[in-house]
Amino acid sequence: MSGNFTIGIDLGGTNIKGGVCDAAGVQIVRRSTETGADRGVEPVIARMVELVDRLSSDAGLGESDLRAIGIGAPGPMSHSAGVILNAPNLPGWVNVPLRAKFREATGRPVVLENDANAAAFGEFTCGAGKHTRDMVMLTLGTGIGGGIILDGRLWRGRFSTAAEIGHLIVEPDGRPCPCGKRGCRERYSSANAIAERVVEAIEAGEESSLAPVAEAGEPLDARAVDRAADDGDPLAARVWSEACRYLAIGVINLQHLLNPELVVFGGGLIHAGIRLLTPIQEHFEQQVWKLAPDAPRLVFAELGDDAGTIGAAALAREAHR
Amino acid sequence: MSGNFTIGIDLGGTNIKGGVCDAAGVQIVRRSTETGADRGVEPVIARMVELVDRLSSDAGLGESDLRAIGIGAPGPMSHSAGVILNAPNLPGWVNVPLRAKFREATGRPVVLENDANAAAFGEFTCGAGKHTRDMVMLTLGTGIGGGIILDGRLWRGRFSTAAEIGHLIVEPDGRPCPCGKRGCRERYSSANAIAERVVEAIEAGEESSLAPVAEAGEPLDARAVDRAADDGDPLAARVWSEACRYLAIGVINLQHLLNPELVVFGGGLIHAGIRLLTPIQEHFEQQVWKLAPDAPRLVFAELGDDAGTIGAAALAREAHR
Repeated sequence: MSGNFTIGIDLGGTNIKGGVCDAAGVQIVRRSTETGADRGVEPVIARMVELVDRLSSDAGLGESDLRAIGIGAPGPMSHSAGVILNAPNLPGWVNVPLRAKFREATGRPVVLENDANAAAFGEFTCGAGKHTRDMVMLTLGTGIGGGIILDGRLWRGRFSTAAEIGHLIVEPDGRPCPCGKRGCRERYSSANAIAERVVEAIEAGEESSLAPVAEAGEPLDARAVDRAADDGDPLAARVWSEACRYLAIGVINLQHLLNPELVVFGGGLIHAGIRLLTPIQEHFEQQVWKLAPDAPRLVFAELGDDAGTIGAAALAREAHR
Repeated sequence: MSGNFTIGIDLGGTNIKGGVCDAAGVQIVRRSTETGADRGVEPVIARMVELVDRLSSDAGLGESDLRAIGIGAPGPMSHSAGVILNAPNLPGWVNVPLRAKFREATGRPVVLENDANAAAFGEFTCGAGKHTRDMVMLTLGTGIGGGIILDGRLWRGRFSTAAEIGHLIVEPDGRPCPCGKRGCRERYSSANAIAERVVEAIEAGEESSLAPVAEAGEPLDARAVDRAADDGDPLAARVWSEACRYLAIGVINLQHLLNPELVVFGGGLIHAGIRLLTPIQEHFEQQVWKLAPDAPRLVFAELGDDAGTIGAAALAREAHR
């Protein structure tokens, strides 16, 4: 296989990000463009191909320098077939054979991966997990994504849908989830859920310093809840603490099920820093397992928004050595 | 490595079981003896060694026929060091270097494994999982044990304490568990918990056809609860259904986290047959994931009480090819 460089693409509902990585996995160039998802499948693919061309040009890559392309994309997919089965945030993306289409358009080998898996693999190769063999990553954003690396390999599961950590049930008969289940972790500990639960409580008559914002119908996000909790607002503090508690239960259950060395938190919510990590650790330590000293280390992701492109590029390199 | 045969030992709180397996992994001879755990660590090890001698003799093994010995034992352990850290059901078993002691006593290579892991590996090699690559087993007995096989390999985790599926939290702030946590699955879906919950409800004044037994202080087991539920007793039916529901939540969470091909139920509780499997499947189907057809198959274990010895022997063979 020729070429020392790989390109990673991170296909999101709002933006498409891309990066060029060198033989050591280091991202040397990056670029982003709007997805324009409402225009349908083919125009989005055309934009992704254009992004590859621009990145190649930015990095000064010649015809034979690009070894392979990795794409991280949302929604359940068949990794082996290279098909996106259903991406709820991308209108029309049902059963799209993205790998074949992209290979045809670019002439390069292409790897298709779940976006959260790609981000986890990025952190594993170049970020928070680079000195470990086993890690689980939780990406705390609009929803909650996840990725599992076991003994140095990304674990995809039988139908490539492993590590949907946002959709594990943490509260039997809990809050309904659009996925069809009740009590999914995503309905308590994602940035969206944190904001939603505060708005719901205010609408139900609970007092809060955030009430004027919510009652004016203005957008209220997890960052505002974090700030209000920090300022002593009881409702915000309760919702924030519960979000952290369900994450701690997640860590406990990962400890007992997979017993990984490391649990990595990424995504927008980690901007809260120790106001996120300390309560997770406190909830965790309240229920610590007495039979063996097997707790994972809890750390923050290090690559920020670049984890997805770096990971997709690394997966392309791994598949096309 | 010489020898075509391996011996598997399953060390339990009440009995020590042993079996001789041939080169194909088939158990050709088996034998059992009382553990006599109250007599302390060394006498139990002496009994295990005696069991190996008798099994070798039963199978007509010569000096060079025995390749290796596998031991499945309870409690958290260090697989790599061959040390049992803490076995709550075996008095005095704290930091016991069982592998080294047993190797010295028998002169053969020894592999030490968690008993539930060994049983899962037995089902994987010779039982319900023999045509799969990925499976998770839940052993529903006094407690709940588990074993995870991913891509054909037993997954032990960083500190050899993976697959403690009975100690995953399924009900935040739920029933206290001797492990120090609250709401562990074992406190709802093990045979002991099912019986205990019925007794507790009767003591709290709830009516049940099982009340005379419980009030007389006679032992009441999960089999009696199963029978009473089947005969229409509302309390027994509710407790049984809840046990199945928490198992279904376990299956859902395994589906989303590890996405295995197969989930295998073993242990005493599976004597209930379809009265166990059907409600698990019904609870599961009520909360089915709509985004991808990735549900695992749910099946019963096939090897019964032999899974542990067959698995321990298979692990010994795998480690000493």
